[in-house]
Amino acid sequence: MNIKNFVIDVDGVLSTGQFFYTSEGKVMKVFGPHDSDGIKLIKNIVQIRFITADWRGFDITKKRIDDMNCPLELVSEEQRFGYIEDIGFEHTAFMGDGYFDAKIMPHVAWAFAPKNARKECLDAADYVTPSRAGEGAVMDACLFLKKVLENESEN
Amino acid sequence: MNIKNFVIDVDGVLSTGQFFYTSEGKVMKVFGPHDSDGIKLIKNIVQIRFITADWRGFDITKKRIDDMNCPLELVSEEQRFGYIEDIGFEHTAFMGDGYFDAKIMPHVAWAFAPKNARKECLDAADYVTPSRAGEGAVMDACLFLKKVLENESEN
Amino acid sequence: MNIKNFVIDVDGVLSTGQFFYTSEGKVMKVFGPHDSDGIKLIKNIVQIRFITADWRGFDITKKRIDDMNCPLELVSEEQRFGYIEDIGFEHTAFMGDGYFDAKIMPHVAWAFAPKNARKECLDAADYVTPSRAGEGAVMDACLFLKKVLENESEN
Amino acid sequence: MNIKNFVIDVDGVLSTGQFFYTSEGKVMKVFGPHDSDGIKLIKNIVQIRFITADWRGFDITKKRIDDMNCPLELVSEEQRFGYIEDIGFEHTAFMGDGYFDAKIMPHVAWAFAPKNARKECLDAADYVTPSRAGEGAVMDACLFLKKVLENESEN
Repeated sequence: MNIKNFVIDVDGVLSTGQFFYTSEGKVMKVFGPHDSDGIKLIKNIVQIRFITADWRGFDITKKRIDDMNCPLELVSEEQRFGYIEDIGFEHTAFMGDGYFDAKIMPHVAWAFAPKNARKECLDAADYVTPSRAGEGAVMDACLFLKKVLENESEN
Repeated sequence: MNIKNFVIDVDGVLSTGQFFYTSEGKVMKVFGPHDSDGIKLIKNIVQIRFITADWRGFDITKKRIDDMNCPLELVSEEQRFGYIEDIGFEHTAFMGDGYFDAKIMPHVAWAFAPKNARKECLDAADYVTPSRAGEGAVMDACLFLKKVLENESEN
Repeated sequence: MNIKNFVIDVDGVLSTGQFFYTSEGKVMKVFGPHDSDGIKLIKNIVQIRFITADWRGFDITKKRIDDMNCPLELVSEEQRFGYIEDIGFEHTAFMGDGYFDAKIMPHVAWAFAPKNARKECLDAADYVTPSRAGEGAVMDACLFLKKVLENESEN
Repeated sequence: MNIKNFVIDVDGVLSTGQFFYTSEGKVMKVFGPHDSDGIKLIKNIVQIRFITADWRGFDITKKRIDDMNCPLELVSEEQRFGYIEDIGFEHTAFMGDGYFDAKIMPHVAWAFAPKNARKECLDAADYVTPSRAGEGAVMDACLFLKKVLENESEN
């Protein structure tokens, strides 16, 4: 199968999906304690690619992803399918949570969804994590993917 | 039946219902990642009308609703019944979560409540969403209403 | 029995109990959407008295209680027992959630605890609310107390 | 056994583990209402030592720990094993929640994990608390440890 990329949607996967609003607009997002441990475990064996469609909250997201020393790209929901097609469906693991993410899942090598993703993703994913988004879902997926990749390289 | 309006209460339906206070007063509310996807799916087939009784937090709410390109009106709990009566109970779907919202529900064409609404609403609603407020409850209601409206237009 | 007072602890009962810290210290607390509806239903038939032991977060709490037009007093855990004794255990309903609150509960006319209170309170309370703190627990207690008070006045 | 130290990891144990980000970076953490009651109950019978690996959020954490009048040390994940070894595994109770904490647990006198810790900790801990992190998990552990220490001193 030869998985080279792990594309991870941010809102509702790495973050809890919550948007905190003041009278100034969207100002805050929430992330969890375990996911950066997971990224550490696999960043040398697969290319991590965080993506987000949230241009309004991009600066907030960027801060978190920078703190984890990973790349982040702004990819709208309309562009998402083409983005993954370009880097190769068969070489890509993908983790998402939204209504439109579900349509991408049948095409990729491995599809992950957090426990509290939209029902459409729970149905389409290959592996639903035992943890909720922002509470270790990405860590769960990293441990799973690490196992998959190690088995691959042994064969 | 001919549903023309979808009236959606904000606090405890689109938001989690939580009010974040500092020593300056009410400063923040929390919204979820899926509901704007739901609004996109139905905004061309029904008139979306967000309402709120929270005048103190109105500016915060307005920012979120503006970001979704929808209208928002300040309608107190006392005015709520008359407001919906004026636009026509039989042409209106309504989503609410509070003690006083339950009394409106028997009058409208379709009544929705998030899973974690007050018990009075859970009893009075036609459809209780599988998701909690601020975690996709409005998305659930939009998918349901879309199905209802598509069935209507087929007949 | 003749209940005249309803003494309500704030943190972990009206609020979620969460303390939000920045590098400046404790800056924020979270309140829910339903409890002010409950207070409205009973404020004319019983004296509402909010109390808090949190002097560091007092200004934050004061803002919320002011918005509900209720009185708030700073009462430390050590003073709590004496405070309620002074206004009369037999004329007082009390709602609390903490380890030290449990010791007061056997003395008052009615003792309430939110669903997610400390185990010691769940054991000592007369009525455990179906809702969690900050998600309608005070509303639940108000509806219950209203029923109690109406039955009393009928007899 | 003679337990002298209680080493408590902060993020995901005393705090909920959530990191709140704005466009300025990590700005906020959340703590619960019960844990300081627990610390009060045991601080005279065991040495409390809070540790954190989060240097970016250290100032936030410091504020909370200062408000509880306890010491806090910055101990990275790599240093954690050696840090506890130095103060004596057999004289130390330890509470943690993360993937790497699990490896320390078999070595200490008593190992605690909050209900929502990583699975690896739930498996390795001697006592998993009934409460989640930031909702009383440290209080649970303090009550448990108090009982252990009182039994020890009786023998």
